[in-house]
Amino acid sequence: MAQLRLQFQSHLLPLAHTFTLSHSSRTHTPITFVAIQWDEYTGFGEAAMPPYLGETPESSERFYASLDFSWVDDPGDLASLKAYIDAHAAGHTAAKAALDIALHDLHAKRLGVPLYTLFGLNPSNSPTSSYTIGIHPKNELLEILPETEAFGLIKVKLGGDSDRETIQLIRDYTDKPLSVDVNQGWRDEKKALDEIFWLKEQGVIYVEQPMPKETTHAMEWLTEQSPLPTIADEAVQRLVDIPSLVGRYSGVNIKLMKCTGLREAFAMIQMARALELKVMIGCMTESSCGIAAAAHLSALADWVDLDGHFLLAKDPYVGLGFNGGVVQVSNEPGLGVRPNGLNWDD
Amino acid sequence: MAQLRLQFQSHLLPLAHTFTLSHSSRTHTPITFVAIQWDEYTGFGEAAMPPYLGETPESSERFYASLDFSWVDDPGDLASLKAYIDAHAAGHTAAKAALDIALHDLHAKRLGVPLYTLFGLNPSNSPTSSYTIGIHPKNELLEILPETEAFGLIKVKLGGDSDRETIQLIRDYTDKPLSVDVNQGWRDEKKALDEIFWLKEQGVIYVEQPMPKETTHAMEWLTEQSPLPTIADEAVQRLVDIPSLVGRYSGVNIKLMKCTGLREAFAMIQMARALELKVMIGCMTESSCGIAAAAHLSALADWVDLDGHFLLAKDPYVGLGFNGGVVQVSNEPGLGVRPNGLNWDD
Repeated sequence: MAQLRLQFQSHLLPLAHTFTLSHSSRTHTPITFVAIQWDEYTGFGEAAMPPYLGETPESSERFYASLDFSWVDDPGDLASLKAYIDAHAAGHTAAKAALDIALHDLHAKRLGVPLYTLFGLNPSNSPTSSYTIGIHPKNELLEILPETEAFGLIKVKLGGDSDRETIQLIRDYTDKPLSVDVNQGWRDEKKALDEIFWLKEQGVIYVEQPMPKETTHAMEWLTEQSPLPTIADEAVQRLVDIPSLVGRYSGVNIKLMKCTGLREAFAMIQMARALELKVMIGCMTESSCGIAAAAHLSALADWVDLDGHFLLAKDPYVGLGFNGGVVQVSNEPGLGVRPNGLNWDD
Repeated sequence: MAQLRLQFQSHLLPLAHTFTLSHSSRTHTPITFVAIQWDEYTGFGEAAMPPYLGETPESSERFYASLDFSWVDDPGDLASLKAYIDAHAAGHTAAKAALDIALHDLHAKRLGVPLYTLFGLNPSNSPTSSYTIGIHPKNELLEILPETEAFGLIKVKLGGDSDRETIQLIRDYTDKPLSVDVNQGWRDEKKALDEIFWLKEQGVIYVEQPMPKETTHAMEWLTEQSPLPTIADEAVQRLVDIPSLVGRYSGVNIKLMKCTGLREAFAMIQMARALELKVMIGCMTESSCGIAAAAHLSALADWVDLDGHFLLAKDPYVGLGFNGGVVQVSNEPGLGVRPNGLNWDD
């Protein structure tokens, strides 16, 4: 009988540019890729692990090595596989997401349909993606701005010392809509509100994680007063966290690497909608493999921030399109991506 | 180009036995059946409308007649179809469930896979179903008990004047595990707790909707003290209600007719699991069409109560199996049921 076979390999991938947030800066990003085989089919997945989130290639590889899939007689039983993987150890959300993505790729390939079909979606409903600009000195910023050309929305990382100058510099360059991501950088809700009113005048359409994730009453006040939607990012990880956002934020940034993958993200989106929260689908710095997985769900989002693969110097997966500012999945079965210089055993 | 075509027809179906709850009694049940066609494929669905829930064949038919599907160019875009149907009018949860079931049947038939495959489930994980006994005088009860023979769990409707006599009569007949459904019939939480302790000694494994659905503090106390899980039924309708159950109930009875169908039920089950609530999948008095839809999700449930089709004098759909106490879906594409004496236009 067929057996479920898991392979994995880790890489420290070089970035196209040094990436600076309010709390860190880096030139490479660690990723562990997985491949899951069943009969003649192979599903691909990816664990993208920015260092500040606590997972590493070593922790993922230990997690994978400790799993036992010998009990699996039906790789289409995604429910039992998710339950087993999730209960095997706490945490490891990116490592789990890689398995979930690969199992979905495998499942859809065995059925011969693109992944969005399994979720009952039409990918032509996917909104344009934003392109993210890190925190840079003025001269670097001027060099980077031309890269935003093909995008309909520019996401700007704030929380540094010269936020308004950054926004004004971008405004001098383009009148495209902007979004901002403060990455918990603001501490005073009254100053935050002043800043948001100013940002709205500059054409900003939403504000991501303005204050520290633990903030409750101040975030309730800020969301109530804010002329722009506030979006939870660091304040939310998984499905269980969604109900607690009501009243504190206007919406949620759902990322596969935080929530263990597609199956949980799909439930999170529906719970968020039922609670009248806005839905944003985001990413880490990832290859086209992880980005494709998120892009297959993006028809369900109000806003999409799926630019992680553009930040890599070289993408180890190909097959994803980009047109009119929209990250476009292929109509091939599964994720619709294939390795590009990455080797897997047959 | 192909067009989405909706047909519907209503029937007052005779029951095999008069069915008595704590608040009503009936000999027939009203059902509106739907068929949705696209190209050469037809998906079947059903709205089962027990009179005390407020929907009627007339309200469903008016709802269907007011819909306009001329915009649909992709019947696999279940997300957009659900959003359109749900926003078209408030309420109508059974009428909406019929459309959701038919659209899932159609989608899975077009893909050539059984419905459980779309949800990533293995139907061999489905638990045994209970068989429900209404409130009957002793002589009728003795006649009905042999019908429970093939089932592994008997669900007993309580809230009448002779609950303990009923349980004892059943205990004299069989030592199978029991569950009870009080349908909001108990008013005093201390008496309810005494009753639950007694029921546990009689081999009862869970208690459904012991007190009125509006009960909050008393239900929190009862659930905290209860030696058996308490399950919300009337207290929950849709996904948005799930988070409010935490602390008030141990679990939730999810029914397609309450929650607008499979797509929302699937999200409800996952939200309930994330909140550590038990999951029960139940039904109304329905044909094999609606029961099959619920049975395709039943691998996700702790307990299943899918006996509605056994309560009909004649079932207008066939194709569902029953073996070892488990309601078994077929491996045919879609729901795996076909009309049995019900006529649809080609």
